[in-house]
Amino acid sequence: MRARTYQLLERGEDHAPFGRVIDVFLIALICLNVAAAILETVDAVYLRFGPYFGWFEFGSIAIFSVEYIARVWACVEAPVASHHRPMTARLRYMASPVALADLVAILPALLGPLVMLDLRWLRLFRLLRLFKLTRYWSGLRLLADVVRQEAQVLGASMFVLLVIMLLASGVMHAVEHRAQPEAFGSIPVALWWTVITLTTVGYGDVVPVTGAGKTVAGLISLIGIAMVAMPAGILAAGFAEHARRSARSRKRSEKAERKLQSRLRQEQETGKAADPERVDRRCPHCGKLLPLSADNQVDRRRQG
Amino acid sequence: MRARTYQLLERGEDHAPFGRVIDVFLIALICLNVAAAILETVDAVYLRFGPYFGWFEFGSIAIFSVEYIARVWACVEAPVASHHRPMTARLRYMASPVALADLVAILPALLGPLVMLDLRWLRLFRLLRLFKLTRYWSGLRLLADVVRQEAQVLGASMFVLLVIMLLASGVMHAVEHRAQPEAFGSIPVALWWTVITLTTVGYGDVVPVTGAGKTVAGLISLIGIAMVAMPAGILAAGFAEHARRSARSRKRSEKAERKLQSRLRQEQETGKAADPERVDRRCPHCGKLLPLSADNQVDRRRQG
Amino acid sequence: MRARTYQLLERGEDHAPFGRVIDVFLIALICLNVAAAILETVDAVYLRFGPYFGWFEFGSIAIFSVEYIARVWACVEAPVASHHRPMTARLRYMASPVALADLVAILPALLGPLVMLDLRWLRLFRLLRLFKLTRYWSGLRLLADVVRQEAQVLGASMFVLLVIMLLASGVMHAVEHRAQPEAFGSIPVALWWTVITLTTVGYGDVVPVTGAGKTVAGLISLIGIAMVAMPAGILAAGFAEHARRSARSRKRSEKAERKLQSRLRQEQETGKAADPERVDRRCPHCGKLLPLSADNQVDRRRQG
Amino acid sequence: MRARTYQLLERGEDHAPFGRVIDVFLIALICLNVAAAILETVDAVYLRFGPYFGWFEFGSIAIFSVEYIARVWACVEAPVASHHRPMTARLRYMASPVALADLVAILPALLGPLVMLDLRWLRLFRLLRLFKLTRYWSGLRLLADVVRQEAQVLGASMFVLLVIMLLASGVMHAVEHRAQPEAFGSIPVALWWTVITLTTVGYGDVVPVTGAGKTVAGLISLIGIAMVAMPAGILAAGFAEHARRSARSRKRSEKAERKLQSRLRQEQETGKAADPERVDRRCPHCGKLLPLSADNQVDRRRQG
Repeated sequence: MRARTYQLLERGEDHAPFGRVIDVFLIALICLNVAAAILETVDAVYLRFGPYFGWFEFGSIAIFSVEYIARVWACVEAPVASHHRPMTARLRYMASPVALADLVAILPALLGPLVMLDLRWLRLFRLLRLFKLTRYWSGLRLLADVVRQEAQVLGASMFVLLVIMLLASGVMHAVEHRAQPEAFGSIPVALWWTVITLTTVGYGDVVPVTGAGKTVAGLISLIGIAMVAMPAGILAAGFAEHARRSARSRKRSEKAERKLQSRLRQEQETGKAADPERVDRRCPHCGKLLPLSADNQVDRRRQG
Repeated sequence: MRARTYQLLERGEDHAPFGRVIDVFLIALICLNVAAAILETVDAVYLRFGPYFGWFEFGSIAIFSVEYIARVWACVEAPVASHHRPMTARLRYMASPVALADLVAILPALLGPLVMLDLRWLRLFRLLRLFKLTRYWSGLRLLADVVRQEAQVLGASMFVLLVIMLLASGVMHAVEHRAQPEAFGSIPVALWWTVITLTTVGYGDVVPVTGAGKTVAGLISLIGIAMVAMPAGILAAGFAEHARRSARSRKRSEKAERKLQSRLRQEQETGKAADPERVDRRCPHCGKLLPLSADNQVDRRRQG
Repeated sequence: MRARTYQLLERGEDHAPFGRVIDVFLIALICLNVAAAILETVDAVYLRFGPYFGWFEFGSIAIFSVEYIARVWACVEAPVASHHRPMTARLRYMASPVALADLVAILPALLGPLVMLDLRWLRLFRLLRLFKLTRYWSGLRLLADVVRQEAQVLGASMFVLLVIMLLASGVMHAVEHRAQPEAFGSIPVALWWTVITLTTVGYGDVVPVTGAGKTVAGLISLIGIAMVAMPAGILAAGFAEHARRSARSRKRSEKAERKLQSRLRQEQETGKAADPERVDRRCPHCGKLLPLSADNQVDRRRQG
Repeated sequence: MRARTYQLLERGEDHAPFGRVIDVFLIALICLNVAAAILETVDAVYLRFGPYFGWFEFGSIAIFSVEYIARVWACVEAPVASHHRPMTARLRYMASPVALADLVAILPALLGPLVMLDLRWLRLFRLLRLFKLTRYWSGLRLLADVVRQEAQVLGASMFVLLVIMLLASGVMHAVEHRAQPEAFGSIPVALWWTVITLTTVGYGDVVPVTGAGKTVAGLISLIGIAMVAMPAGILAAGFAEHARRSARSRKRSEKAERKLQSRLRQEQETGKAADPERVDRRCPHCGKLLPLSADNQVDRRRQG
């Protein structure tokens, strides 16, 4: 029965038709939860449908809790878990990002009454249930891969941004603090203007008024262009690199498979069965099957 | 006569000189229609030239209707349609994006009086006649190709954007709703501020006023940079990938043609099988195939 | 003397040391002219130094006119011009972008008094003298190359932007014209808001106030991100393609030259002079010298 | 002892465990210095903790001065310095960017009292101590490399930006100076609006009000998109080029090492010259070199 639960929950789309139904139901429930958390903040809606929201929240928490427990219980069936003892496998699963997102979805609601958390913050935590959706979407992995791959350069550009922000705030504070003491009176206060300008948001609630301030601000906003261009350039290179790599590895594995198949066909034709000892030889780096042709030729030449 | 209609309408630039005239006339008519729909909304213009706009609209609808019927009638002549029965071919054509754009251009005006549509919305639909122009511009296809090719990653980045937007609205609602109840009183209302900030538009009509609000808003607007950088990076990689692919396929077909031609020429000249050493000769500077005739003439002169 | 003038003006940096001085002098004069045109618009400066500006302008025009006439007179000495008759060569030179920039720098000042042009617009034309600087900067050519190479895709994205702008203006006009008749009263008027929003400038002087308007405006400003991302992506791919091409052609020509040199050295060592008839063989596509090795080997094999 | 100092300061992470402690201490001190310089500008904090800030500043300067002197004294031990005389090596080190950042961190505080510098500007210079951090972060070098590599094209796009800015200011001055004499009264004043618009910051403190002004401003803000797209595209190509180069050089060195190692291992095992057929064997899936030992063992087992 645990294996059945595992198949329903984790391999819904592959094996069990009923598992697919469970997936769709859970996705819909997450979306409804987020929609409810958003609508609850509208006073007119809350006053009218308040009790219904309460019951819906109660039911959702129950379902998500059952789901979480079932997943933790059944995760032992995963092929990866076969090398560990059940308890270790469960702890490892609970530490995975996907399981943590499931936990974050229910924990605040379960602990909220205990720690006397404000209702308003509780609702915020309900928005975090969106993270449960990451389980169902493989496209996000690519984004995360590229960001991780470029993390060092992105971090360096963040550091440059921070340095520029602090220096710009310092200069603007020195230049404008006499004309606008409430907006540029200290560097922490001036940071508000600097961030809004460097990100090219530019609300206009704080604007330099002196000639020197406008000159400095003009230069800073020109640098703002570079601040937008820098991560865009880094990510562009990252996505391009990722595309090239996956294209190359796809080509390589296609080539390898072609070779393997033609080899097998050749051996069938020549009436000589493939050497079973050799069939299972795998690359020690990536674990994939190696094409045999080259080795066999060498071996035969040596044996002959 | 149907074949003649087809040639005039669909292959205007290739075959019939009169077809080119029809193309230019239709493009001009579309532009005039859009210009008229724009100018009609200016009261001063409408009051003075109102009736002329009416007649122009009437005539345009008549022409576009005739064009649509003629295209549907003649589409059977297309090479693609030869495998289907006339009615099937016509239905398939009517479901194509280009034909739907043609239909959208006339349908609202024909159905408008029936469904009692507001004149103002009818004018809006007239702007959709711009889509008829896509037929005449092949450059748009490349854009659409790249966007479609990167659709999965772009979709993932849209999902990330949505999650960030909802969380940011939730946090700002929790932090600022007491200070500005009308601008951050609920998450749906706070979304207006979040969208305008994350897209770096930054009107400044809604601005956080509390210290905590400004701190959170500063972080959110820094994320806004990434929101601009993400699709820019994805599209940059997409366009680069597209350019590389088309360059490779061009190179491949050129190479194949070069080999074929050089071999044929050689065989013709020498009257015997091609010299394998000569096949790959090309200029090391520009990579183009060198004409063999010159070399051969020199060689013959020497041998003679 | 015409040849000397040509060398001084067009090849200042290569040959004549005095030509370099002329270059620097002209660049400084252009910069001073632009600075003067900018400072003249400041009333306080103009009232005080007005006459000096007049004399400076008079002298500059005189120098630029002499320079233009000298260039047109001497352009016949250019290697490209040797195939044409002097008058044809001069007309061709006068139609080149560089010469047109020179003409634009002097023409308005010479014709200004005739056509009774406003002094304020005359000053504007003086700013166009900046274009004279393009002659001295080769880095701009790369930018222009990439933009030209990607022109078709950039044009398509401009068309998409135009369509989106018109549709957005139409929708916002329909949604907001009742609440804000002066800002969204007609599509041409609403275009101001649309452009400022789609470019993510976002002044905030015109902002939607109705709920429907804010919803539509939020969607439109999200599209604004794509409008920034699209050309950034196209240009990124263009620059990458350009870099790859120039790297490849550099590699190829280096390889060819290496081969040629090693061949020549070999021939010197073997005591056999290079065949003069063969040395001049050039690729008919790019006009560069071809390496000889392959041909000579073939020839020798045949002769032997 | 000088060698010991050098190892502690410059190779802290590699050799001496105590050197690592010094690194962490200096990094923390820099961060605390910057935090202090920021907090000092907040009046409430300064009034209360003023004297402590003074003592902290005094101590920091002392430590940084000792650090600077120690580094200059010990830099003679660097492998690069072995070719020069001690004094020359020290002067060369003092002119390096890293040493200049160290000098900038202490010089203003040491010279401040002499030149009677305003306290507010002295604090600004303290922010420059952030530059001392560049020593500890190798990720910044990549950023600097790419920017330097693309410097010529970035410079050209800056020049284009400057030309567009001046022309846009001129046109807006001519169009709007009558309606808004204080905001567009002269080109230098109009530059404020132009910079804020072209960078898509868009505060909204200065906005065109005439119809002609709005039309021109709309076109200028569309150009603003290109201004953001241009450097993003250039940097994207630069990062991609950098990634490709480093990938190629990594591949090349890996390949060379692989060939060498496999040959050496083979020769050791077989006791004879390497089998040329074996040298290039690698996994077709991941491209990594396959260990030859396994094959050889199998072969020997068969041969034995």
